Amino acid sequence: MAKLYGVGVGPGDKELITVKAIEVLKKADIIAIPESNNEKGSTAYEIVKPYIKENIETLTLTFPMIKDEKEKESIREKNALLIKQKIDEGKSVCFITLGDPMLYSTFIYLLQNLKQYNIEVETIPGITSFSAMASLLNMPLTIQKEKLTIVCSFDEYVKQLVKLSDTIVFMKVSSYREKLYDLIIENNLLNSFILVSNVGKENQIVSLNPEDLKNSDFSYFTTAIIKK
Amino acid sequence: MAKLYGVGVGPGDKELITVKAIEVLKKADIIAIPESNNEKGSTAYEIVKPYIKENIETLTLTFPMIKDEKEKESIREKNALLIKQKIDEGKSVCFITLGDPMLYSTFIYLLQNLKQYNIEVETIPGITSFSAMASLLNMPLTIQKEKLTIVCSFDEYVKQLVKLSDTIVFMKVSSYREKLYDLIIENNLLNSFILVSNVGKENQIVSLNPEDLKNSDFSYFTTAIIKK
Repeated sequence: MAKLYGVGVGPGDKELITVKAIEVLKKADIIAIPESNNEKGSTAYEIVKPYIKENIETLTLTFPMIKDEKEKESIREKNALLIKQKIDEGKSVCFITLGDPMLYSTFIYLLQNLKQYNIEVETIPGITSFSAMASLLNMPLTIQKEKLTIVCSFDEYVKQLVKLSDTIVFMKVSSYREKLYDLIIENNLLNSFILVSNVGKENQIVSLNPEDLKNSDFSYFTTAIIKK
Repeated sequence: MAKLYGVGVGPGDKELITVKAIEVLKKADIIAIPESNNEKGSTAYEIVKPYIKENIETLTLTFPMIKDEKEKESIREKNALLIKQKIDEGKSVCFITLGDPMLYSTFIYLLQNLKQYNIEVETIPGITSFSAMASLLNMPLTIQKEKLTIVCSFDEYVKQLVKLSDTIVFMKVSSYREKLYDLIIENNLLNSFILVSNVGKENQIVSLNPEDLKNSDFSYFTTAIIKK
């Protein structure tokens, strides 16, 4: 049936995909693969390969990481139209995405751009990087009355949220790592820091040293946690 | 191998379990099933049944929902010792838990009580109720620079976090539903409210009406989201 599926494939570990995602992928006519111009290949596609039909039609959609918002929006619209075209042809399209489709994902923009066309959409949730990271380290995110905040950028609100929350997750931290370092120093949180890059993948890196925020480069898929 | 696994089985939908959880469950010697005195049966056990060996040994651990913290701790210690005993016998134990083991789960207490024994532990993350809920409604949790806060109780900090965050998840909301209602009225958030009880299960309830917080009873597994 012609339908768009937003499929969360988990954080990168090939086994952290759900049964529901696999069932949907098995039946799909087309796999839509988002790619940035920062990454080589697609981790999401590597994860789903064992579960899809041989010779299935794929549709690679490029979402370049550029600063010009107008150009970005125009590219998103073009990609949304490519999906709509396939749906209009009566095909089911699985748009695969790392982590959870409803949390800072490209799929959300696609939903916004497709809203006007009333296309049927089904979203399959995915394991987030911070859940995978907490499990990897056997480190509770929250117990009892603790509060958890998740951010993806840095501003004054983040500074206040850090003071009020017990655990703070910083996703895609590489773009604001120096600001996070300063915040850690200002709030004396040196011993509360954990960073994992490419969680569950072969090139996974774990660091407990906030100095690494200053001195090291990390991939786009890097999550830091402050656990007070 | 003698080892404790904390296995997240997802929010309640039988298909929202990961391949990794299934692989671990298949090999387990014992399934440890947490039960409260509030629930009849175990949803987590219903989810894993298709994946475990026939006639596998089960260990039902009761964690009653009582207010006396001392008694609660004493029960937790007893349950931890029951697990330790099985590990000492050389068995692998899968402690199953709804949602994610590192987010407000009974497994966290177990980890704390077992810390002194240096038992090998592996945690398998799970899909959270709020991810499942967002997917069910095709409702983004966060886009761009939005901030997400997750809480499980109500106090002055929560009031401040609601002002600073774009999306706020209220887990196990039934215990503080009237306070949440007052907060919604005070902050004029009547049109930003979504509640799902028993997400993905047959008895799932969806409500977009904050008045229901005052007038209806919901199960323990009820999550509300304010999405500004």
